[in-house]
This record gives sequence, C-alpha cells and structure tokens, in this order.
Amino acid sequence: MSKLLTDLIEALRCLPGVGGKSAQRMAFHLLERDRERGQRLAQVMAQAMREIGNCSRCRNFSETPVCTLCASSSRDRQVLCVVESPTELAAIEQATGYRGQYFVLLGRLSPLDGLGPEELGLDRLAERLAEGEIEEMIIATNPTVEGEATAHYLAQLARAGNVRPTRLAHGVPLGGELEFVDRGTLAHAFGSRQSLD
Amino acid sequence: MSKLLTDLIEALRCLPGVGGKSAQRMAFHLLERDRERGQRLAQVMAQAMREIGNCSRCRNFSETPVCTLCASSSRDRQVLCVVESPTELAAIEQATGYRGQYFVLLGRLSPLDGLGPEELGLDRLAERLAEGEIEEMIIATNPTVEGEATAHYLAQLARAGNVRPTRLAHGVPLGGELEFVDRGTLAHAFGSRQSLD
Repeated sequence: MSKLLTDLIEALRCLPGVGGKSAQRMAFHLLERDRERGQRLAQVMAQAMREIGNCSRCRNFSETPVCTLCASSSRDRQVLCVVESPTELAAIEQATGYRGQYFVLLGRLSPLDGLGPEELGLDRLAERLAEGEIEEMIIATNPTVEGEATAHYLAQLARAGNVRPTRLAHGVPLGGELEFVDRGTLAHAFGSRQSLD
Repeated sequence: MSKLLTDLIEALRCLPGVGGKSAQRMAFHLLERDRERGQRLAQVMAQAMREIGNCSRCRNFSETPVCTLCASSSRDRQVLCVVESPTELAAIEQATGYRGQYFVLLGRLSPLDGLGPEELGLDRLAERLAEGEIEEMIIATNPTVEGEATAHYLAQLARAGNVRPTRLAHGVPLGGELEFVDRGTLAHAFGSRQSLD
C-alpha cells in the first residue's frame, strides 16, 4: 500500500473509537468518494487545533479571548454553573433550558495527577464570585469520587464568597426500571424521597 | 458553541459511520487531549487528498506515477487480478498469499450511471493483455448483478487476448452454519459440489 495512504490510516486512529479497520474504511471512503470534503475537514481541523483556545472568563473552548456565551447579554448573570469539561457544558446546553453563565474547570481536584486548585483556575473562579453579581453556584461536577471531592471544595469556596451552592439532584434516572438501577443510586434515591403533596 | 468548533464537528461527519454525537466526541477528544495528533492528522489528510492519484498501470491509489506493487520485481507477471476498487485490492492482499499483479476498475459496468468500458479503463487493460506476458486473469469483481455482468465482459476480453479467465469460487462461507446461508448461495454450492476423491 502507498506510504501516504498507510500514514493516513495510522493518523486516523487518533480519533476515539476508531481502530485499524475503521481507519482503513475512512481513508478509502474519502479518497474514492469524498476528496473535497476530506480537504475541507483537513483544513478546518488544522485551523481548530491551532486557533481554539480557552475563554479568559469561563475557560470553555473559544477562538476569541471572551467566548460568545460569556459575551452574550441575554444570559442570566446571577447563576453560575461549574462543570469539569467543555463536553459537560455542551451536554447541559443541549439538554436543559439553563440560561446562566458557566465556569469550566478543565479537570477535577486530583493531587496525584498534579491537579490542584490553581490548575483548575479556582483563583479566577473566586475572583468572579467576589465581583458580587453571582447569587447561586450550580456545582455540576461528575458524580465520581474525585468529582464529589471537587464539589465539596467548590461549595466551601461558594460559601466563603457569600454565594449559595447547589448540586445536581441524584436519584433514579427517568425511563429506567428500578430493577436495573445500581444499589448506591437506589439507596440514595430511597433516602432522599420527596413528598408529593 | 464556538463557530470553529461547530465547523469541525460538521466537517467530521463526512467520515463514514460518524454521526453528530460521534463527531462531537471526536472534536472534544482532539481539543482536550490530543491536539498534536490532531494537527498531524490534518496535515497528513490534506497531503493525501492532494497527492494520492492513481497508478498509470493498475489504477490503484498511488502518489507516484507507477505504484510500488506494479514496480516490484518480486511479483508474478503472469497473473493479473481484476478488482472493482482499491478496497477490494487491500482485502485480497491482506487475506490471501497472492503474489501477482492487479488491475483496478474503479467501478463496475453500469450504463445507467454512465460507467462504460472506457471509464473502467478497459482499453488500457486490453493493452496490458496484448503485451503477452499475462497468462491468467483472475476476475474478482463483487458477486452482485453488476459485478457479474462486468465479470462476463472481462472474460470475453481475456479470451480475445488469449488469456485464461478465472473467477473466485462461490459457495458456502467457511465457519458458517448451513441453516443461515442464503438460498441462492446454498443452491449454487449444492449444484457445484466437488468430489472428495
């Protein structure tokens, strides 16, 4: 097989979920049927890798110093939602009707990996809380051990800044069957049962 | 979401088997964790789309006028295998111990799609047969209606050039159960049963 084609197949494997077989299929597909869109993809990808940085206010991906979401005048400035990564920000934007601001940690507290408050930009977060506009901080870190530890730390930070911290509700997922819910979640949901009155 | 990020997600959808969700996951993965390999992929992809052409002898993908396989002195020049596309050539190279030459049609006879003998390079194939080196032509077009029609045409071409045409064997796939083999294949395998003596 041609050297360049082998290189392309190898390079495509950096995409998540793409192994040798899929990479080969993708390379052949582009070369046989879709060179124009392949060219366009290559160009957009190079530009994105080069130019997309992080918003200086919320640390989300942005090619401008301040992202469109932070710059928007139609977003509620009293509520701030803290997430671990841009992926979670996108998920919340797509699933909920949330109209407030965000802050992206780009990680979670994990001293063993060298991720402390500084790496997560918590000094900048404290500054934003000190501005006095924010009234509620929604802590939307992942419900993992490290995410919970981070949430605990963030709650303290919020209280120190006179901001009310809130956390996403835990419980039984919608549309599931109790039989298949894991024990920890079921126990939590049972303990936090809510009155229907 | 940033314009450039939206563009990247949209562009990634040109890859086969990649929908909106996967494209978003790929874009975030590259930006968060693998910018260097993303840069490299963009660069290799642009180069491949621009520089990979077709071998002037076998019409397979090649960035040189004559591909390494055609230029190789260790391949058998008496046998020529005709396939529809580079994908099938790669499959045969990977699965079999075939050491002969190839010819890639880059399509199949399909008058409704404007694919006639000229588009498939059959004039060039006839020239190669006329060189007199080739003794056997293995016709490995797909076992579809159009592939069979193409095989029929190719067999005539081979006979006209005094070359022996052969076709891949049809039958029951290895490792399958007869119960699940389609009726056409089973009937064919039954009719072409072979003596075990």
